[in-house]
Amino acid sequence: KFTFYLHNTVYNQDSFNSMYGLPPNIRKKNISFPNPFNFGVTNTFDDPLTSGPSINSAPLGQPQGFHLLDSFNEYMLFHVFTANITVGDYTGTIAILRQVREVDSVRYLTVIGGTGAFLGARGVATNRLIDIHHTPPAKWTMSFELDLYY
Amino acid sequence: KFTFYLHNTVYNQDSFNSMYGLPPNIRKKNISFPNPFNFGVTNTFDDPLTSGPSINSAPLGQPQGFHLLDSFNEYMLFHVFTANITVGDYTGTIAILRQVREVDSVRYLTVIGGTGAFLGARGVATNRLIDIHHTPPAKWTMSFELDLYY
Amino acid sequence: KFTFYLHNTVYNQDSFNSMYGLPPNIRKKNISFPNPFNFGVTNTFDDPLTSGPSINSAPLGQPQGFHLLDSFNEYMLFHVFTANITVGDYTGTIAILRQVREVDSVRYLTVIGGTGAFLGARGVATNRLIDIHHTPPAKWTMSFELDLYY
Repeated sequence: KFTFYLHNTVYNQDSFNSMYGLPPNIRKKNISFPNPFNFGVTNTFDDPLTSGPSINSAPLGQPQGFHLLDSFNEYMLFHVFTANITVGDYTGTIAILRQVREVDSVRYLTVIGGTGAFLGARGVATNRLIDIHHTPPAKWTMSFELDLYY
Repeated sequence: KFTFYLHNTVYNQDSFNSMYGLPPNIRKKNISFPNPFNFGVTNTFDDPLTSGPSINSAPLGQPQGFHLLDSFNEYMLFHVFTANITVGDYTGTIAILRQVREVDSVRYLTVIGGTGAFLGARGVATNRLIDIHHTPPAKWTMSFELDLYY
Repeated sequence: KFTFYLHNTVYNQDSFNSMYGLPPNIRKKNISFPNPFNFGVTNTFDDPLTSGPSINSAPLGQPQGFHLLDSFNEYMLFHVFTANITVGDYTGTIAILRQVREVDSVRYLTVIGGTGAFLGARGVATNRLIDIHHTPPAKWTMSFELDLYY
């Protein structure tokens, strides 16, 4: 059992830790279409990771990777990232992959590997949204509760 | 054992469920190169998923994710996606990853996780091309036969 | 046990086997920021793969996939790729995923699946940097020592 909190801040003029890539277009065809949920856009992140829900709680390291917005109709974030744990008794990295559907109150992601203290880790990361501010700069905090096996 | 059919339609003016992102370029260098297989281009999709090979057969849900074209010499599609099964006795999501080489008649992808009825799923997804129309809007149907273990 | 060597050459006018995608920007906001480590940029590759550290040693096949640069402060390359082994007694593909941190002398990636002779493979890929030329065209050779189980 291991829980961490990820704090993501999108494109704030002063400080941010994640950024959207360019939107897809329909190449060489002069077509536009409504895209309210940013379908096809990649967001790369390099976030703070803490031991508690407050961004001022003890730091644990940094999650780094990306999510891809992959639904036309709702916020669906396909995550591929590594939690780099650099502080504490157990240091190493944990690779996590799966989709987060914003409307779900609980989401389950897959732990697909690890290094250091987490070498060979597998398991489930139970994800919950703790806090979100939609007004720019968009900001959110999510918890990840890991059940690991080796 | 669980089989589903994925129907992908690329950039049709009226309806489409997948889109290509921007092609890579050689930045700050005025170089172009032939790229007949769209090397480096990402396609995001949010497709219908049905229980039979016809798009009019019983709906099962939606596969969402992306593939990346990653060969200079042939069509190679590196898939990373989740099949979201929303209809039927078993609902949940199945995460699938691997490369599809167009010339291979049978392709094997890896099931790397699941949620809901598929929590902790692992296994192999045997993939076959059922039908393809190369003329724009490009369209194809592929089957995925899942062998899951827990 | 299985070892291969990957040779990557970025944007050389005459020959190259990998290319950077477009950098992210802060859309609709006229903001720029220093990005010395190319945060948010995807590099797609279709590299030679050999049995020895020299690019002239016996060819084994091609690794194909991408890495994403995902740190603001150092070179961190999140790899997602398939090693396609086409020569030798054991042919098939091996899917590998994980982050490579340039400053680490040894990096551990996760083998998440395989096809052909490697169907159902899992395990660890121990990665080392063998050689790097930072001056354009950037070039590097890395070794991957695979410990596979089934």
